[in-house]
Amino acid sequence: MNWKSMLAPYAQVVEELKVKLKGIRKQFEYESEHSPIEFITGRVKPVPSILEKAENRKIPLENIDTEIQDIAGVRVVCQFVDDIYAIVEMIRARKDLLIVEEKDYVSKKKDSGYRSYHLIIEYPVETIDGMKKLLAEIQIRTLAMNFWATNEHSLNYKYKGSIPADIKERLQKAAEAAFKLDEEMSMIKHEVQEAQRIFHRK
Amino acid sequence: MNWKSMLAPYAQVVEELKVKLKGIRKQFEYESEHSPIEFITGRVKPVPSILEKAENRKIPLENIDTEIQDIAGVRVVCQFVDDIYAIVEMIRARKDLLIVEEKDYVSKKKDSGYRSYHLIIEYPVETIDGMKKLLAEIQIRTLAMNFWATNEHSLNYKYKGSIPADIKERLQKAAEAAFKLDEEMSMIKHEVQEAQRIFHRK
Amino acid sequence: MNWKSMLAPYAQVVEELKVKLKGIRKQFEYESEHSPIEFITGRVKPVPSILEKAENRKIPLENIDTEIQDIAGVRVVCQFVDDIYAIVEMIRARKDLLIVEEKDYVSKKKDSGYRSYHLIIEYPVETIDGMKKLLAEIQIRTLAMNFWATNEHSLNYKYKGSIPADIKERLQKAAEAAFKLDEEMSMIKHEVQEAQRIFHRK
Amino acid sequence: MNWKSMLAPYAQVVEELKVKLKGIRKQFEYESEHSPIEFITGRVKPVPSILEKAENRKIPLENIDTEIQDIAGVRVVCQFVDDIYAIVEMIRARKDLLIVEEKDYVSKKKDSGYRSYHLIIEYPVETIDGMKKLLAEIQIRTLAMNFWATNEHSLNYKYKGSIPADIKERLQKAAEAAFKLDEEMSMIKHEVQEAQRIFHRK
Repeated sequence: MNWKSMLAPYAQVVEELKVKLKGIRKQFEYESEHSPIEFITGRVKPVPSILEKAENRKIPLENIDTEIQDIAGVRVVCQFVDDIYAIVEMIRARKDLLIVEEKDYVSKKKDSGYRSYHLIIEYPVETIDGMKKLLAEIQIRTLAMNFWATNEHSLNYKYKGSIPADIKERLQKAAEAAFKLDEEMSMIKHEVQEAQRIFHRK
Repeated sequence: MNWKSMLAPYAQVVEELKVKLKGIRKQFEYESEHSPIEFITGRVKPVPSILEKAENRKIPLENIDTEIQDIAGVRVVCQFVDDIYAIVEMIRARKDLLIVEEKDYVSKKKDSGYRSYHLIIEYPVETIDGMKKLLAEIQIRTLAMNFWATNEHSLNYKYKGSIPADIKERLQKAAEAAFKLDEEMSMIKHEVQEAQRIFHRK
Repeated sequence: MNWKSMLAPYAQVVEELKVKLKGIRKQFEYESEHSPIEFITGRVKPVPSILEKAENRKIPLENIDTEIQDIAGVRVVCQFVDDIYAIVEMIRARKDLLIVEEKDYVSKKKDSGYRSYHLIIEYPVETIDGMKKLLAEIQIRTLAMNFWATNEHSLNYKYKGSIPADIKERLQKAAEAAFKLDEEMSMIKHEVQEAQRIFHRK
Repeated sequence: MNWKSMLAPYAQVVEELKVKLKGIRKQFEYESEHSPIEFITGRVKPVPSILEKAENRKIPLENIDTEIQDIAGVRVVCQFVDDIYAIVEMIRARKDLLIVEEKDYVSKKKDSGYRSYHLIIEYPVETIDGMKKLLAEIQIRTLAMNFWATNEHSLNYKYKGSIPADIKERLQKAAEAAFKLDEEMSMIKHEVQEAQRIFHRK
């Protein structure tokens, strides 16, 4: 399989989504409003991770296009929990992509403590062989959720999915601290947003 | 008029077009083929230039959206004259934009010596106030055409459109030298393209 | 005063420091080690803020070069509290800059709850008028400290330095939550670092 | 040999030189003067090319650091032939690098038709293992020289250094056309530079 050429359109999807979501951020700044988007990252899933996922889920290689939904992945990180839902609304309203699935791990966190909002979208991308509709995943989370998730991801990788009980417990405590930080921040959110409006108007 | 907020969607169009056209270049490289695109630049027309154009052409400010076609501008620079037409074909085939006008100053150069292919397109862009269809100009030219045009532009600006006869003459000679370079390069084009294919396959 | 031309060398200092500190991050990744640097941002102080600071501190305009130390500012954000000190050590060892002052608001936080490590450095930059030695500030903090400080900064701006008592209290609580998150993360730090080493070696 | 880790400091040199030379360009623009620099590119020599050069020149692998001078390479492209010498002067005056060799293929072109000015410099770079002095090559050329050289490079690669006589002849003609374009442009250089000064002052 020529992976480079197979993954090139996915890399293009990631680049386009990043530019489009960054555009939202800039427009809020021009309007002197609080931007619900703090920053955006994106990546194409590395080939070894694709192969591992295909093997675990018994997905034949010719089906990975349709059955692995996160080959193209974009992450939107925001300041406040409310911002997550504002971003979801904005993505739902767009005409240049189609949402095919939504998973709300914010209001209903995973057992591990993981919180994030996931959207699976279908995105039309022009390639040198014509237009293709590809799947991509958009993850939306706060700074605190992101901090926690980054660490959990590294640990999960190390322990191949079975983190020892004592470390799991500590991760839980860190998740609670992250949750607490999000809650405290929400309490001053309204004040901060108004302050940012004044700030950008300067 | 709040220019920042009025021009923000045009800035977004420029960013998206740049990412999309750069994507074409990368895909050719992945396929180990000669890319017809050498590099891409883009800009939003500065406000003083918009005002000047509006005044010269008696365009009321409320109509600049529809009557000034190059507020968003993207330039595609290529190695060989043939590449220009290959790029035009690819843009015509895209489903994410609509060509509303074509001007071929390559096969029929302007009196000044200016050569370039111009496309006016209509491009749908998502803004925080919903989807908008905006006009944009795509200029396509070779490296030699670009070199000449850059200099002519500076001179035109200096002399406010009426370049003195002797300088005009020298510019014409430079235009001929640029044309000659394009012709000589076309003679070895086939060889170079094949060489690039081998090069990228490495 | 020609601000653009006066600030250009400072902008150059910011760009060079960003590239140099980002280089540290990449080298850790190549070596498959935990990078103490998560991300880097930089900015030149906006002219209105320079003028305000000069006025408040009665600094004559001809002295702002030597008396305002944060015209060029770079911020280094890291995952763990220990990383802050690792970064300070690395900056102290460099031969391409000179540290002229250190302020440790990490081990001894400000009354407001603010925590960060500040370095004032002297940096030699080549300009078109020859080499100049300019002052710059490097702030080093964790993700949680950064999150809190960003919000406090907006509020301070809104209330011109005198935040009402009730909001101040809520900010204090948020600072405690951020501190708690840093502590919990420190507990699993060793595990996460080792996991990242394995991760990057992949 | 761990190439990634061996080449990381060279990649850092390339990044720093690019930022520093781009800074020159911006400063000229701020001062509303013609910038002698049009654009800058950089690259680390790919491993296969390093190995090939080492083999051809019988350089043992432990000596490539000192005997291969272009592992880190930066290219400065300018509008006019005179700009080349202006850039050389500016690099000679810098205190953050040391020139160890100069080759002037502009006033004395190679037999192939190749024209460019080459500088070999020694550049001190901070790494996570302390400061290192590394060699780097800076190539300076006009747009027309660059266009020609890019094509010759592809052909040389294809024919492994021995380009057939008929293609060589065509390349020579293209080199003459490029030279002619540079000459014609030099004739209007003074006019264009003055125009650019006015342009940027706008």
